[in-house]
Amino acid sequence: MYGPGDVRVETVPDATLQQPTDALVRVVRTCVCGSDLHPYHSRPASAEGSPMGHEFIGVVEETGAEVGNVRPGDFVIAPFAFFDNTCEFCGEGLTTSCLHGGFFSTAQAEAVRVPQADGTLVTAPVGEDSALLPSLLTLSDVLITGHHAAVTAGVGPRTSVTVIGDGAVGLLAVLAAKRLGAERILLMGRHKTRTDLGLEFGATDVVAERGDEGIATVRDLTGGHGTHTVLECVGHLPAYEQALGVVRAGGVISRVGVPQYDEAPAGRDLFGRNITLTGGPGAQRPYIEELLPDVLEGRIEPGKVFDRTVGLDGVPEGYRAMDAREALKVLVQP
Amino acid sequence: MYGPGDVRVETVPDATLQQPTDALVRVVRTCVCGSDLHPYHSRPASAEGSPMGHEFIGVVEETGAEVGNVRPGDFVIAPFAFFDNTCEFCGEGLTTSCLHGGFFSTAQAEAVRVPQADGTLVTAPVGEDSALLPSLLTLSDVLITGHHAAVTAGVGPRTSVTVIGDGAVGLLAVLAAKRLGAERILLMGRHKTRTDLGLEFGATDVVAERGDEGIATVRDLTGGHGTHTVLECVGHLPAYEQALGVVRAGGVISRVGVPQYDEAPAGRDLFGRNITLTGGPGAQRPYIEELLPDVLEGRIEPGKVFDRTVGLDGVPEGYRAMDAREALKVLVQP
Repeated sequence: MYGPGDVRVETVPDATLQQPTDALVRVVRTCVCGSDLHPYHSRPASAEGSPMGHEFIGVVEETGAEVGNVRPGDFVIAPFAFFDNTCEFCGEGLTTSCLHGGFFSTAQAEAVRVPQADGTLVTAPVGEDSALLPSLLTLSDVLITGHHAAVTAGVGPRTSVTVIGDGAVGLLAVLAAKRLGAERILLMGRHKTRTDLGLEFGATDVVAERGDEGIATVRDLTGGHGTHTVLECVGHLPAYEQALGVVRAGGVISRVGVPQYDEAPAGRDLFGRNITLTGGPGAQRPYIEELLPDVLEGRIEPGKVFDRTVGLDGVPEGYRAMDAREALKVLVQP
Repeated sequence: MYGPGDVRVETVPDATLQQPTDALVRVVRTCVCGSDLHPYHSRPASAEGSPMGHEFIGVVEETGAEVGNVRPGDFVIAPFAFFDNTCEFCGEGLTTSCLHGGFFSTAQAEAVRVPQADGTLVTAPVGEDSALLPSLLTLSDVLITGHHAAVTAGVGPRTSVTVIGDGAVGLLAVLAAKRLGAERILLMGRHKTRTDLGLEFGATDVVAERGDEGIATVRDLTGGHGTHTVLECVGHLPAYEQALGVVRAGGVISRVGVPQYDEAPAGRDLFGRNITLTGGPGAQRPYIEELLPDVLEGRIEPGKVFDRTVGLDGVPEGYRAMDAREALKVLVQP
């Protein structure tokens, strides 16, 4: 990415092993993320450009001398963060805060160097032609992110839920909330093909209005009080403000859309009604281990969020189509 | 209170029953709250003035026709909010969001009209000369507020704690954290007589520095990472910013000092490290029921936060002394 709207496909030096804990993974599927659209809008232009992409599944091609958990030929899922899975934060399940970790940023490519391969990669018993590939790819980011929103918000059978945002993360937050037992799930979004998929994933109500009008509708639908939990899957300030408007007293707002702001109304607005604000990056390894069986056994089909497939050459068009809301989420087959 | 620094003692019409759900309580002890100092600094001057005070214990003098849980002669504790204890929010334990509730604001007086008396008042088997009165009075606000901070932050045997603020709430947040099993409690405060009481209540470390220096000290004391929970018992923005600096990745900041700000750094600062922000008003009736036996049986002595006693005529001097940090918390004996 060279600047706003300027995505180019280029030949770069091959990824190689650099540390004995590295693995080299050939990318079988990658994709474009809603969060990639933030720099697509606003990253300053540069002459050098930046590699892009943080979601991928693939096949291990080569491993460093200290890698023991995966071996060449393994089919693997990589979350969007890497981690050793042994430090004190990983031990608490917070792999995004690994003391030796970081985030991927070169996955829209033919191959990726994976640091801390033993901790990071999760193997899956599938072949490169599996029909499950799209759903497995969601374990790299959008499904575990939606799940993180629902888990940190404390979603369960007794909590009503509002999901803000009908992007892939929002729709999979609906799926995750449903999977955790929520019986009332209000989806705020205004793109009918997307909200229809949200209904298929378990939403009970769709609220197309935004801002004050949307807040009023949610309150009307919930006896005037709002919902116990709000899963904010956008990242822009108006989405957070909308969350404040629809959350019930004593409730929880969980944000998984990367905030595009630093300051926010988070003083008296949260305090008086005992609102909890939580969330963050959701690339926690335990989530993949928890969700993988449901994907493999077909109990959930999160891969339905992909509605277009391109080759690497099609990535610039994929960004454009997602930005124009012509595509929900673009799968890339290198 | 007629304006900044302007507190007067005046004769006003007697409190009377207005609703059949009211009780009239003669005040045996009330006090000045750290939160009373916020308007003492900044409330615009007015010709009418405002009554003050929200903490009191006393004796029921008269009850409305629909009051059944308390009767004249009962010694009662009133939390700083009133509530019916039957609505759906009260049913969830969030009595500060009662659909028929509100907050007291006339307790620095000889008598108070208590709305929703059946829900609000908790009886205690003591006489007006009990040595426990100071500790019982903390159940009206400062102890349940400190407890709310610790509970909402999830304090327990496995969580390290930083308490920000050495006022009465901060010191009782220390006591509450200790009572909930915390083994490592860092108290940030710089008034030695207060932090000494904090050590008596269970603090394991005192950090006298503030701002970046204080943050660095807490990090040094915790292996570089900060503590799992931070109980912010001040309410000014620098205290919140200090909380951000000392909270561990994946940790919780609970605020019980009333925020004196609307906007705060609550975007990327919270998100990237999965920090949870929680807290609010802590006048939840279940807390009083939980803590009362410990007070009655002497297992905790929260009343030690009172270091000065005045009559009603001494209330203006009480405000001044607390504001000047000459007194920690001023007990008022009408």
